Amino acid sequence: MMKLYFAAHTCALASHIALEDAGAEYSTVRIDFAAHQQRSPEYLAINPKGRVPALVTGRGILTETPAMLAFIAQSFPSAQLAPLDDAFGFAEAQAFNSYLCATLHVAHAHRMRGYRWVDDPTAIEAMKRKVPDSVGASFELIEGKMLRGPWVMGDSYTICDPYLFTVAQWMEGDSIDPARFPKVSDHRQRMSERSAVRKAIAEQLA
Amino acid sequence: MMKLYFAAHTCALASHIALEDAGAEYSTVRIDFAAHQQRSPEYLAINPKGRVPALVTGRGILTETPAMLAFIAQSFPSAQLAPLDDAFGFAEAQAFNSYLCATLHVAHAHRMRGYRWVDDPTAIEAMKRKVPDSVGASFELIEGKMLRGPWVMGDSYTICDPYLFTVAQWMEGDSIDPARFPKVSDHRQRMSERSAVRKAIAEQLA
Repeated sequence: MMKLYFAAHTCALASHIALEDAGAEYSTVRIDFAAHQQRSPEYLAINPKGRVPALVTGRGILTETPAMLAFIAQSFPSAQLAPLDDAFGFAEAQAFNSYLCATLHVAHAHRMRGYRWVDDPTAIEAMKRKVPDSVGASFELIEGKMLRGPWVMGDSYTICDPYLFTVAQWMEGDSIDPARFPKVSDHRQRMSERSAVRKAIAEQLA
Repeated sequence: MMKLYFAAHTCALASHIALEDAGAEYSTVRIDFAAHQQRSPEYLAINPKGRVPALVTGRGILTETPAMLAFIAQSFPSAQLAPLDDAFGFAEAQAFNSYLCATLHVAHAHRMRGYRWVDDPTAIEAMKRKVPDSVGASFELIEGKMLRGPWVMGDSYTICDPYLFTVAQWMEGDSIDPARFPKVSDHRQRMSERSAVRKAIAEQLA
């Protein structure tokens, strides 16, 4: 049985939803960021990066949301969470997820975790001020060019959908008005009504 | 025939090497960053993100290095560039590549492209000062925990190897002494002797 290490309000929600979508048997372990548990020796032994998510499998431990989502899709093919027999379609889904991971999430992280990239407190404040622009530009690209509808990849629900839903949860906190992005907002609304999403969120916020 | 859009000294080198490793038939198109060609209407029609790399395939256009590398591995299975029949092994390779993309490359980008995340020139200078620390911390994790040897994933050469080689090219520019990382440096040296690597570099620097 797999075990997902998560913290609330993080990108770990994407893998949590995907595990539900897949019908996987799994358990969860909450990591308490307020108590800096992600830097504890016990957790660093699981994930030396000191971050969430981490997924303990029968073969070993996986990290990095895009890799975990692809793993879940490949491990539960009957759930049809990605075009597994179509290298190009699979790559399109992966490219979307990579963009969320390396561009949108990174831009968002400059609001709360600026210390990763700068030491000067004044510069950290300057970083925070640009987050609405930089994250907003990512959502503009998603709204205008990437989200096909009704699901990210078009007619089929894939591992891109829980990931987009997860990062779209952060809009208000990043001072972005969801009304600017009707397609993303509609997607977020429809996602929030899915039982897998409700179950994962209820568990994370419990 | 595929077509790779690249600029010299960027992460596009990883996909270029992988295309060589795969024995793919492909052509290349240089994008001139000095002339801001990546923001031209012609290139934005290919990649609305205004970045390299982009790979034009018979099915459409792909972006994002981790997705492109996985696509190349899956499209040329006989080249054995990833454990394609082992979802866990494939995920481990993808997790490594995702780390390079979303952590190491992002840390590196704060030296030359700080304007993505901040407007204040003083803050941009402050960002530059932390690059040796932040990129260095990534190489420490790779050296100590992630690079198995002789190749990234162990005995088998995979799509992780051209990507690590590519980002390891940036160490000196980021004021990181390669001698601190003997395993990464040995990997870089062995990679530099491969004919696929020599061919890709020669073409990019021509």
